[in-house]
Amino acid sequence: MIKEKVLVNKRLINWGDLDALGITFYPRYYEWMDACGHAFFDAIGLNMWRLWEERNILFGLIETHAKYHRPGRYFDELTIHTYLCELKSKALALRHDIYNQEGQIMVEGLERRICLNTRGPKQFKAMDIPKDIYERLRAHLKET
Amino acid sequence: MIKEKVLVNKRLINWGDLDALGITFYPRYYEWMDACGHAFFDAIGLNMWRLWEERNILFGLIETHAKYHRPGRYFDELTIHTYLCELKSKALALRHDIYNQEGQIMVEGLERRICLNTRGPKQFKAMDIPKDIYERLRAHLKET
Amino acid sequence: MIKEKVLVNKRLINWGDLDALGITFYPRYYEWMDACGHAFFDAIGLNMWRLWEERNILFGLIETHAKYHRPGRYFDELTIHTYLCELKSKALALRHDIYNQEGQIMVEGLERRICLNTRGPKQFKAMDIPKDIYERLRAHLKET
Amino acid sequence: MIKEKVLVNKRLINWGDLDALGITFYPRYYEWMDACGHAFFDAIGLNMWRLWEERNILFGLIETHAKYHRPGRYFDELTIHTYLCELKSKALALRHDIYNQEGQIMVEGLERRICLNTRGPKQFKAMDIPKDIYERLRAHLKET
Repeated sequence: MIKEKVLVNKRLINWGDLDALGITFYPRYYEWMDACGHAFFDAIGLNMWRLWEERNILFGLIETHAKYHRPGRYFDELTIHTYLCELKSKALALRHDIYNQEGQIMVEGLERRICLNTRGPKQFKAMDIPKDIYERLRAHLKET
Repeated sequence: MIKEKVLVNKRLINWGDLDALGITFYPRYYEWMDACGHAFFDAIGLNMWRLWEERNILFGLIETHAKYHRPGRYFDELTIHTYLCELKSKALALRHDIYNQEGQIMVEGLERRICLNTRGPKQFKAMDIPKDIYERLRAHLKET
Repeated sequence: MIKEKVLVNKRLINWGDLDALGITFYPRYYEWMDACGHAFFDAIGLNMWRLWEERNILFGLIETHAKYHRPGRYFDELTIHTYLCELKSKALALRHDIYNQEGQIMVEGLERRICLNTRGPKQFKAMDIPKDIYERLRAHLKET
Repeated sequence: MIKEKVLVNKRLINWGDLDALGITFYPRYYEWMDACGHAFFDAIGLNMWRLWEERNILFGLIETHAKYHRPGRYFDELTIHTYLCELKSKALALRHDIYNQEGQIMVEGLERRICLNTRGPKQFKAMDIPKDIYERLRAHLKET
């Protein structure tokens, strides 16, 4: 499913995603980006649920950003390109480029996540990305 | 906050709650009912999070129902009346009556919940409502 | 896509669909049912947006209902069976049966919709389903 | 409600806002920011629905951004400070600073919006902010 370090997902804009103008209410884009981020981690062998359950590790959000170039409308078929664009000792960033059926860019999204130790349920702590996970991520880092 | 066994909450309909017709997208009503249900439990001294954390008990949904009488629009100010309308050994039901600013009924909602033992994280089990909780609930049951 | 009068859709449960127990927050099921309802109408040649734009007709919700048999979890792959189970002069009902990857029923959902004239933007009026639309619907009514 | 050019809103984090870790799923913050933005416009006499209906003007999103400093949990009571931090001939930006009950910053959010002519329903066009609206906005611009 990953090709040249990019995960491609499809999604149909539905009635419930629209606002009163008939265009996508923007928090929906972030919901889709988050879902694509989880799919990306799973696709490279780092299922987030298992990381959490087996190793008490989670990549929590510290920053998100999006630019909206064109509005999404009813039954538009979106193509979302997700890739790892940044990797540091404790943090990483995912890009999510969303295209319409004509191949035009609609939304450019970014999620910056930090590696967290979830052992203390009330007090997550930032930690270095464990070496094996870091190597796995680095193998899928897309130079841009 | 509870008066004659009814918890009253206010809520403003916002842009993000509307669909392309400019009326409330109906799953939002269920989100608000769920929030009012949690507020109701908290108001009668049965905070759901503490029940879960301290006693491994949760009231999980088994059935929901709603009738829609009038559409909700931008900046309508809703009043939600929440009360316990049914209590059995293992289950209960909450009513949520939603009114507009003219006092007209907009939505009649129902949530039926069952008492669950959450100790097995993958396999919740139905259980009798513990006696102290049952008595607390019975004291707030509204005969209709 | 429609087979024996049933539309089948797939959907993956994502991180953002879960609550603090790690199971699907129930209003999400209604969002998915609504999307499947729109897909069903489109699949039988009655695209809802075009009905609205070209003929000022909308099938608005008057009642929804769901029973929850099993909780949905992270990355569960749902199969949703959507079909028309009721047809009257002004109203209809859609069933949405949601199964997990083992083929077990998770949720049984129902949406009852009424035919509305949307010409008056502030005052939708119930109307008889126009004859051509009624016939199209009747051809896809599933006797149960 | 506006004091020293800042609109203050309160919001309770609810069960349905949480993810499986028991912390707020981040797109919810954007939903709340959007609602606060609409409340801000209304509070300064520029109700967005009326701008749209009466003058075919909408302030559409072109960019959003958020930094997450602390996770939000069940029943946390948030205070959201919303203010206009940027004003140009065609565009503006709103800041949304979200604090917890201890007064600690949880989320810093930004929405950048552009003035759109909505007369062409399928093709919104950027336009200069009309002079009267621009003056009204400038009177509420918070220098930072």
